[in-house]
Amino acid sequence: MAEIREIVQEGDHQFTMGPYAEPVARVADGETVTIYTEDAFGGSITSEDDVPSESLGPYLNPQTGPIFVEGAEPGDTLAVKIEDIEFTRDWAASCLVPFFGGLTSTNLTATLQEPLPERVWKYQIDGDVARKGDWEIPVRPFVGTIGTAPAIEARSALSPGDHGGNMDVPDTRPGNTVYLPVRADGALFYTGDCHVAQGQGELCGVALEVSAKVTVTFRIIKGRDILWPRIESDEHIMTVGSARPMEDAARIAYAELVGWLTEDHGFEKFDAYQLLTQVGELYVGNMVDTVYSLVARCPKRHLPD
Amino acid sequence: MAEIREIVQEGDHQFTMGPYAEPVARVADGETVTIYTEDAFGGSITSEDDVPSESLGPYLNPQTGPIFVEGAEPGDTLAVKIEDIEFTRDWAASCLVPFFGGLTSTNLTATLQEPLPERVWKYQIDGDVARKGDWEIPVRPFVGTIGTAPAIEARSALSPGDHGGNMDVPDTRPGNTVYLPVRADGALFYTGDCHVAQGQGELCGVALEVSAKVTVTFRIIKGRDILWPRIESDEHIMTVGSARPMEDAARIAYAELVGWLTEDHGFEKFDAYQLLTQVGELYVGNMVDTVYSLVARCPKRHLPD
Amino acid sequence: MAEIREIVQEGDHQFTMGPYAEPVARVADGETVTIYTEDAFGGSITSEDDVPSESLGPYLNPQTGPIFVEGAEPGDTLAVKIEDIEFTRDWAASCLVPFFGGLTSTNLTATLQEPLPERVWKYQIDGDVARKGDWEIPVRPFVGTIGTAPAIEARSALSPGDHGGNMDVPDTRPGNTVYLPVRADGALFYTGDCHVAQGQGELCGVALEVSAKVTVTFRIIKGRDILWPRIESDEHIMTVGSARPMEDAARIAYAELVGWLTEDHGFEKFDAYQLLTQVGELYVGNMVDTVYSLVARCPKRHLPD
Amino acid sequence: MAEIREIVQEGDHQFTMGPYAEPVARVADGETVTIYTEDAFGGSITSEDDVPSESLGPYLNPQTGPIFVEGAEPGDTLAVKIEDIEFTRDWAASCLVPFFGGLTSTNLTATLQEPLPERVWKYQIDGDVARKGDWEIPVRPFVGTIGTAPAIEARSALSPGDHGGNMDVPDTRPGNTVYLPVRADGALFYTGDCHVAQGQGELCGVALEVSAKVTVTFRIIKGRDILWPRIESDEHIMTVGSARPMEDAARIAYAELVGWLTEDHGFEKFDAYQLLTQVGELYVGNMVDTVYSLVARCPKRHLPD
Repeated sequence: MAEIREIVQEGDHQFTMGPYAEPVARVADGETVTIYTEDAFGGSITSEDDVPSESLGPYLNPQTGPIFVEGAEPGDTLAVKIEDIEFTRDWAASCLVPFFGGLTSTNLTATLQEPLPERVWKYQIDGDVARKGDWEIPVRPFVGTIGTAPAIEARSALSPGDHGGNMDVPDTRPGNTVYLPVRADGALFYTGDCHVAQGQGELCGVALEVSAKVTVTFRIIKGRDILWPRIESDEHIMTVGSARPMEDAARIAYAELVGWLTEDHGFEKFDAYQLLTQVGELYVGNMVDTVYSLVARCPKRHLPD
Repeated sequence: MAEIREIVQEGDHQFTMGPYAEPVARVADGETVTIYTEDAFGGSITSEDDVPSESLGPYLNPQTGPIFVEGAEPGDTLAVKIEDIEFTRDWAASCLVPFFGGLTSTNLTATLQEPLPERVWKYQIDGDVARKGDWEIPVRPFVGTIGTAPAIEARSALSPGDHGGNMDVPDTRPGNTVYLPVRADGALFYTGDCHVAQGQGELCGVALEVSAKVTVTFRIIKGRDILWPRIESDEHIMTVGSARPMEDAARIAYAELVGWLTEDHGFEKFDAYQLLTQVGELYVGNMVDTVYSLVARCPKRHLPD
Repeated sequence: MAEIREIVQEGDHQFTMGPYAEPVARVADGETVTIYTEDAFGGSITSEDDVPSESLGPYLNPQTGPIFVEGAEPGDTLAVKIEDIEFTRDWAASCLVPFFGGLTSTNLTATLQEPLPERVWKYQIDGDVARKGDWEIPVRPFVGTIGTAPAIEARSALSPGDHGGNMDVPDTRPGNTVYLPVRADGALFYTGDCHVAQGQGELCGVALEVSAKVTVTFRIIKGRDILWPRIESDEHIMTVGSARPMEDAARIAYAELVGWLTEDHGFEKFDAYQLLTQVGELYVGNMVDTVYSLVARCPKRHLPD
Repeated sequence: MAEIREIVQEGDHQFTMGPYAEPVARVADGETVTIYTEDAFGGSITSEDDVPSESLGPYLNPQTGPIFVEGAEPGDTLAVKIEDIEFTRDWAASCLVPFFGGLTSTNLTATLQEPLPERVWKYQIDGDVARKGDWEIPVRPFVGTIGTAPAIEARSALSPGDHGGNMDVPDTRPGNTVYLPVRADGALFYTGDCHVAQGQGELCGVALEVSAKVTVTFRIIKGRDILWPRIESDEHIMTVGSARPMEDAARIAYAELVGWLTEDHGFEKFDAYQLLTQVGELYVGNMVDTVYSLVARCPKRHLPD
């Protein structure tokens, strides 16, 4: 078996996803690679004595990429199987950042109130749990940010969207396959922002942030176009909608899932709508990013053989 | 052991929850009763040949109640343990109602488009599954609507709110306890709208609707005030937020859960915020009612002993 | 000319609009009456030394009503011409109430932040201006709350909705006619909450609140049903949508205006949509109440003769 | 007097606003130039027989730019006085585009309904009115899209945001000054999308689109940072918030206006909040773009001398 190639960002990490940056690597259809990723703070939070508003740089969520997938063209779909996530340090950090999070006013939901206090929580990763005092958080790693370049836009690495991006949905985890639209030659894949664990909603805006090595396998599905990211696990097919208000993210996710059932699984449109009414699942990935990400899921056992 | 008293609505069912109707029954603190409930259509949809817009009456979601709980006063909390749900027929119905549902414009999200076609799906209940053609939907019964009277408002039985009401969250199920605020003398409890099953979001707006007998035990928690409904299962403590836009329902649910952790479980406020960021769960109960209902959950194993 | 009858609330004012209260007066179709109204605080804020959270009672926005309009039946429209508003005192008050207003978190948009400080501003009404220090606010009186009873609900007097209610739109002013749906026998009209002036949005949640005498003429339009309130001035026809999120209020308002142009002014539906794209007006009445109210307007000069 | 320089796009127009494109022109601080702009369709809609979904190219809203303003640096503000708009043809077009507009489901507010029919309306510009059949629309020209480059993002020309962009607010009109943040060297100014007229909300999504020459004067305000665009007319100071849901756009606009009153006009923060409650104006610029744009206004006569 061939050794897996490692991709390390040369020069600066990327803070946008778009078609304007030079690829850091070129990979073949079917290739498996291991990608080194920074944490969402670029490693700038290391201690509970840090004050985030002082430690953080002007841009957040550094991405490794773009990775050019040979043969991928606009109109294709890029299937990214997440093989493994291996942390490159034994601790993780979360914190409160002023005017950022789910239970505070923000730059978009503006009020005249004072911000919440700043605080850092540092966790020790110990096998399958992350510890902080008495707390034991189960380790459930996933990549918070994963996406391809939009056709002409360069979007902030903090933004989720129809290109993927900073979705912060726990189902982008090892064992699952993420389907992303290809809108630029070579797909131009980016990833970063690994999480040791994160609850649904990513309530305060900051999961258990960590640096990591992410091993993925790329596969091009030629001539197949998708509008929004999709995920497949052993048990579910899933779609991710990212929008504000949150009900629009919910509408997108379920409308895309109706579409998937219709296009690929033989359902009549309104039968798909009906079935998902009774067996669909819908959880909030994040309620904190520039737009919210919701995941709609259909258990595979309800799909025809 | 005493026989369980049965409560059957005399006269018309109620289409609002409020302090203006005469109680249909009076129960004691600690009493267990079995309540007969109609389905959400008042039994008017019985066949796949029915046309909902022709069959349905002017008001939907008939409730059994109000039930006066002796000794309950404003400022108390009413704990309602759902002991059992027994269907009173062997079939369930779902349907598409014009301009109602999650993937259509509605009376509130108004557009100039034509409505979706009307359609009825009738399912046969067969042990632990509901069958419709090849589909097998696991039977997971719950009460769609459960609440107490607001202090001075009479709210439509179609509306969820801080009084409970039409929350359509699958966790109001047998084995779980629902905590409701008491805002009128006797609490004035209402329930109805049992579902054989329902996915998260209740996508088309209509679950597997059924008539049923609901057995519950009432318990008054004196002098304890809550702002929004809460639910407790063996594994989770949960809060329900009902609002529009959906992010406001999410904010309410998680803010209430922070409050619960702080008041009853010894957490400092921002530690609660942090812990829920990493272990909280947040799903969409319904994305179709007059306002949306979201459920935030904290696994009990993360609570101190 | 007959003397105008005066209507003074006997007993308590109403804090809901619904079909459950006894009428305080009965009026004839075509009759003009003068209605005494309390300010939104029931007169409890009188000094800049008051602390709203201590002064205010459990319920806000007392209404005069219900007034039974003889002959009004469900399916009719009630036209209410606002003839005059005369203040019954020479001062007005505004204030900051904790967790209420447009630039603060609220009970629905919940955060963990501290509330804004409380403060009262008292203005002296001096002819056509209200003065506070150097400020001169033009006096532009209107009724903040005006509505009919819903069919079966009793809605809080703080809530706007399809029955009218606490819309807080400056176009419910003298000289204009407000059209309200009749959903209960006698229409059951309520009004209150007069404002000396208010900007669009009612930003902090509290306009220049005042007690006043409101003179209106009632007229029943038999057999004509409307879904949402409408307003007519010399220059405009207007519709009011009340909903959350705010875009839903905008959609309702404009969809109703398309309907009005289509039903009464001979426009084809998409021509109405097009014309309003180029000449319509859309302002925010309030961004602070339980749901937001937006006003869509079409200048009458664009209507066919 | 020096002749005014004309700027014509060489090569392709721009469909994003960002720091990645080469400037088409360089202008001096204080310089007045005339900029040729295309209509929002790039001239592809010319007849009422056109079918928009067939005529339109892959990208919409071509911009002229970027224009490099010598001396402008991140942290400055760019003041753009709109001197004049002169149409370069005598007709304007509006149309219905599938799944685009204020009263239809869209790619973000997704439903399963069919789109509205496509249609084109062509207007003849005749002095101060635009005519279509019996309709006479007053000519009130403005630039729909005007902005500077974000620091690292390239945003679609269809998007409004804190950089300006496709705000579609009628107050970006001749005589008014638009203040834009400088986030890239040279500010990198873009404009296009002139409208002969447009109602508030831009209801169907397409105003009276026209090609035009736009004359503007650039002025750099050194060392003065603004977060969101501002506008000044003879009568008003104004702020523009662009966000979803619409209440967030309202919050941004008014919070920025509170900030402006506080920073530049001597108001204490809560006095500014109070004054705007009574005299502020708040209208919807567009309810159709990728995010909504609302304009908050304060009449200048309420500012201290």
